[in-house]
Amino acid sequence: MGSASNPLVTSSVAVDSSPLPSNLTQDDLKKLAAYKAVEYVKSGMVVGLGTGSTAKHAVSRISDLLREGKLNDIIGIPTSTTTHEQAVSLGIPLSDLDSHPVVDLSIDGADEVDPSLNLVKGRGGSLLREKMVEGASKKFVVIVDESKLVKHLGGSGLAVPVEVVPFCCDFTRGKLEELFRGAGCKAKLRVKIGANGGETAPAVTDNGNYVVDLYLERDMGDLEAASEKILRLPGVVEHGMFLGIATTLIVAGKSGVTVRDRFGVKG
Amino acid sequence: MGSASNPLVTSSVAVDSSPLPSNLTQDDLKKLAAYKAVEYVKSGMVVGLGTGSTAKHAVSRISDLLREGKLNDIIGIPTSTTTHEQAVSLGIPLSDLDSHPVVDLSIDGADEVDPSLNLVKGRGGSLLREKMVEGASKKFVVIVDESKLVKHLGGSGLAVPVEVVPFCCDFTRGKLEELFRGAGCKAKLRVKIGANGGETAPAVTDNGNYVVDLYLERDMGDLEAASEKILRLPGVVEHGMFLGIATTLIVAGKSGVTVRDRFGVKG
Repeated sequence: MGSASNPLVTSSVAVDSSPLPSNLTQDDLKKLAAYKAVEYVKSGMVVGLGTGSTAKHAVSRISDLLREGKLNDIIGIPTSTTTHEQAVSLGIPLSDLDSHPVVDLSIDGADEVDPSLNLVKGRGGSLLREKMVEGASKKFVVIVDESKLVKHLGGSGLAVPVEVVPFCCDFTRGKLEELFRGAGCKAKLRVKIGANGGETAPAVTDNGNYVVDLYLERDMGDLEAASEKILRLPGVVEHGMFLGIATTLIVAGKSGVTVRDRFGVKG
Repeated sequence: MGSASNPLVTSSVAVDSSPLPSNLTQDDLKKLAAYKAVEYVKSGMVVGLGTGSTAKHAVSRISDLLREGKLNDIIGIPTSTTTHEQAVSLGIPLSDLDSHPVVDLSIDGADEVDPSLNLVKGRGGSLLREKMVEGASKKFVVIVDESKLVKHLGGSGLAVPVEVVPFCCDFTRGKLEELFRGAGCKAKLRVKIGANGGETAPAVTDNGNYVVDLYLERDMGDLEAASEKILRLPGVVEHGMFLGIATTLIVAGKSGVTVRDRFGVKG
């Protein structure tokens, strides 16, 4: 799992850091990071295709380069049914981990990134498939706009998601809240918001499970220990902390695009 | 999780150990163990109801005592849809962990029991719900016939089951086999046997997941470490090793019924 909590495991290399036009939207920044990441894709690669508003720009860019003949023989491994559909509609050849258990490179967004390149992912609900694909990748490039950088995971005040089995999910929710009581944790079952704005039913993942969102008032401390505690609860399938999995971080901000490699990982 | 690998954590107390009639079948022995366990059930208790050929004798016995008025105000927490159906048909009042997060006592069988009262469970496919209910129990009485006693988990040559998500289950199967290569592990996806004896489709758990069975040639060593390694794989939901959860073991054998309490746990 690598060194999850040592802030010295990253080295920083700034590139393309001449100030950008000041009228760029957040979506423009996401696109900049995504396009930079796709420069790592080479012909013949098996490529993990992420899920979410930033990753979709990368998927779309790969499709453009395939069509233009600048990339060839790419096999995409989608991390969600949504990305599967996008890639199919763009004509990207696809496979899965059963047929391709080793992935050359994955590109995906994140909800939070800490200084050690640990991530929170899964606010979009695809954390399990993302972790399977990205954990099987030789290189995992994370693409974010600068709003996603945090001092510690959970630090944005938004949720750390945990995928749980539907069976007695309120019991599991309570156990999760109890685990992190010391960090002021509130655990909430994620619900789908109905068309009229009312809450209707639990949100269901691609795997038919539910999601419990952990809201933390304070740093949860040792992340590896937190991960083990969560995974030991029998009702838990997986959590959204990605520890020691990302190898490269690409951040797009108003002041430019920055690329950072985790220490000891070849850029 | 208690001390999983220390053989000194059990103390042995033999009771009712006058030799039994020699014509007892294995099912008779299961019934003897089950009836002995039901002596621990007191009126007013929330009782976890196990799954399988031994546990069903306990469920049936509880129902008898309720009908005879020797027990009252029992609330059963079933560990599978099968046990739920059995308990409903016998008129046992039922609830679940969401409403009753603390269980007074659970009674269930096991596929293997080691000298430290660590178990392998789940060959019947209900390991996840069993672990949720039995892990939430103040007291967990395991009932087996003597054929289930092993020197180390996996030692019977039968499987250690792991519940996995269906998504890319062959990938997860391969990762599991890799983890325990040192113990000569073969990992096989569990299949339902069709009516004609042919393999038809993956066996599906109550939670809509699949099961990978681990067959081990040798002791897998440190059980807590093995557990953590399995749970860290993103495609894994839960495994069938129950470490430090059982508080009492009741064994029925040709030479009598033996009750053993885990050291430090009140009988």
